[in-house]
Amino acid sequence: MDLPVIPALDVKQQQSASARQAILTKPAGALGRLEDLSIRLAGMTGSLAWLPARRSVIVFAGDHGVVAQGVSAYPQVVTQQMVLNFLGGGAAINVLARQMNTHVLVVDAGVAGAFDAHPDLVDGKVAPGTADFSVGPAMTAAQAEQSIRLGLDVAQREIARGLDILAVGEMGIGNTTAASAIIAAITGESAATVTGRGTGIDDAQHAHKVAIIERALAANDPAGQDTLMKVGGFEIGAMAGAMIGAAAARIPVVIDGLISTSAALIAAQAAPGVEQFLIAGHRSLEPGHVAALRALGLEPLLDLNMRLGEGSGAVLSFPIVEAAMRTLQEMASFEDANVSGPAE
Amino acid sequence: MDLPVIPALDVKQQQSASARQAILTKPAGALGRLEDLSIRLAGMTGSLAWLPARRSVIVFAGDHGVVAQGVSAYPQVVTQQMVLNFLGGGAAINVLARQMNTHVLVVDAGVAGAFDAHPDLVDGKVAPGTADFSVGPAMTAAQAEQSIRLGLDVAQREIARGLDILAVGEMGIGNTTAASAIIAAITGESAATVTGRGTGIDDAQHAHKVAIIERALAANDPAGQDTLMKVGGFEIGAMAGAMIGAAAARIPVVIDGLISTSAALIAAQAAPGVEQFLIAGHRSLEPGHVAALRALGLEPLLDLNMRLGEGSGAVLSFPIVEAAMRTLQEMASFEDANVSGPAE
Repeated sequence: MDLPVIPALDVKQQQSASARQAILTKPAGALGRLEDLSIRLAGMTGSLAWLPARRSVIVFAGDHGVVAQGVSAYPQVVTQQMVLNFLGGGAAINVLARQMNTHVLVVDAGVAGAFDAHPDLVDGKVAPGTADFSVGPAMTAAQAEQSIRLGLDVAQREIARGLDILAVGEMGIGNTTAASAIIAAITGESAATVTGRGTGIDDAQHAHKVAIIERALAANDPAGQDTLMKVGGFEIGAMAGAMIGAAAARIPVVIDGLISTSAALIAAQAAPGVEQFLIAGHRSLEPGHVAALRALGLEPLLDLNMRLGEGSGAVLSFPIVEAAMRTLQEMASFEDANVSGPAE
Repeated sequence: MDLPVIPALDVKQQQSASARQAILTKPAGALGRLEDLSIRLAGMTGSLAWLPARRSVIVFAGDHGVVAQGVSAYPQVVTQQMVLNFLGGGAAINVLARQMNTHVLVVDAGVAGAFDAHPDLVDGKVAPGTADFSVGPAMTAAQAEQSIRLGLDVAQREIARGLDILAVGEMGIGNTTAASAIIAAITGESAATVTGRGTGIDDAQHAHKVAIIERALAANDPAGQDTLMKVGGFEIGAMAGAMIGAAAARIPVVIDGLISTSAALIAAQAAPGVEQFLIAGHRSLEPGHVAALRALGLEPLLDLNMRLGEGSGAVLSFPIVEAAMRTLQEMASFEDANVSGPAE
């Protein structure tokens, strides 16, 4: 598959940011992770003057054949219903995006249900839901490529309209099962270790979900770039494509919880280096999130026991991203403010 | 000392907030700590419609006689210099407050240096620095009361101008030494456990700082409401007063790092119940912060390895406070959005 080239980080701008942090009116390192983040962002964007002014969150929706195995607390129709809720402005991601001055774009990557046309909805349906991956591959190789291409195209169109930062989110009943299977396959952790409660299942249902993922891994033996096809989802492939498209254009991408982070693992396999342009917005309560973030070398900004998806934890972290750059750009230096440094 | 009465939380509004969280279009509890925070805020403010619209951060500044013992990496004059930096708009708190649409008010509670009049500076100097508390009390009982009264008055004036939320911050070379001594005295933890690196000291200087705090605790034997007088600071007393003034008016107060949290311990001793109106903005890298937050029953919103003070971690958490209320207020219910609940 022909994917865009991921550029290298701009080491010179990282060094400039680091040097500037050292002369600002604060004890060395006192802004902690804001300082590290400002240096990373300078490297991603190639500029100390960058700000996350024009913001989008793209919410990718898709359904999952594995729900036939009873892995979710909610019926499949909720995927379609929640897409309508996103378009109506009533979901958590809409509320947070309004607060954060962020455009919400919804992509139907594979919902089992039809939608009327809407200006904020992209019809990219690969198929009305994946196949049940507990008995065979979730999708064909062509569908896997189509889903990545979908996300890439959507991201490139958003970038062409003017974009400084992208958050990726998702909706899909059953997709914590797919994400956990991807994370187990790519990180080598056991299904039991990476599988959580999703939207809220009890102990017996959780044991069943783990067993289904173990069966899916045994049935499909996913490895390398076959992982998306074998145990993934259309919205997961599309998220991976969007990350690749943004990273290729030096646009920082804020990822969200378990599912978007599983997509980041897919993206980093398909386009090595993409992980350098990713920011982990928050730490989800889902246990697999920790393993996925570790594999990507990412440390989340927020840790608020959230487990909603939709891009909610990603968008909630935008003010921290902005603060990292504003402090770098706007703070006075010791010299300019006539403030004494540490005593010798 | 005659202090205002701290009201009880509004349990009825807490119950209403909790009931509303249960019908919003998300899995139960999926917004994690945002949900808990919205319920707390409804209890504090007595309203589900409250928003943190009108915001102030008050930065209290004071000097500390104990700097004569060589406990800080920076010279004492930096307190005065940083107050001028705050008034000039060049410090981290100014940058963050601009981003968060927050008014910055600076209070000279006891800086060892004079200032010209400035519209954003309150001249409340109790004395030009405390006495060296490693050899005797930091201040007189009258000065302790005066410092609390100062913060109370300043907070009440801000509230009278219209205020929905207050952050408290500080500046004072040597004040991590005072804060660590307060926290050790009130929580019963050892000086070694609660004492950190402040603005940045090496191992030998840290051991010296611990020894100075141990000597101060032995020389003064602080207990109960004598703690502020014996090992406190003027800006710490004033912060405690501001918390009491805001809590009495049902205004949520976001506290910052080690020093403001030590002031919260003083406030909770002087006016029990004030802690119910406090939100911990972030977790500081200073080790004493953990013990102080535990004693107050508070869990911080952010954990970004910051250790700057000035109210920086408090103001950085404002978007999370806002998000907690906006999601409660603006999200659609399952019924309104025609979204199915969990399958039975």
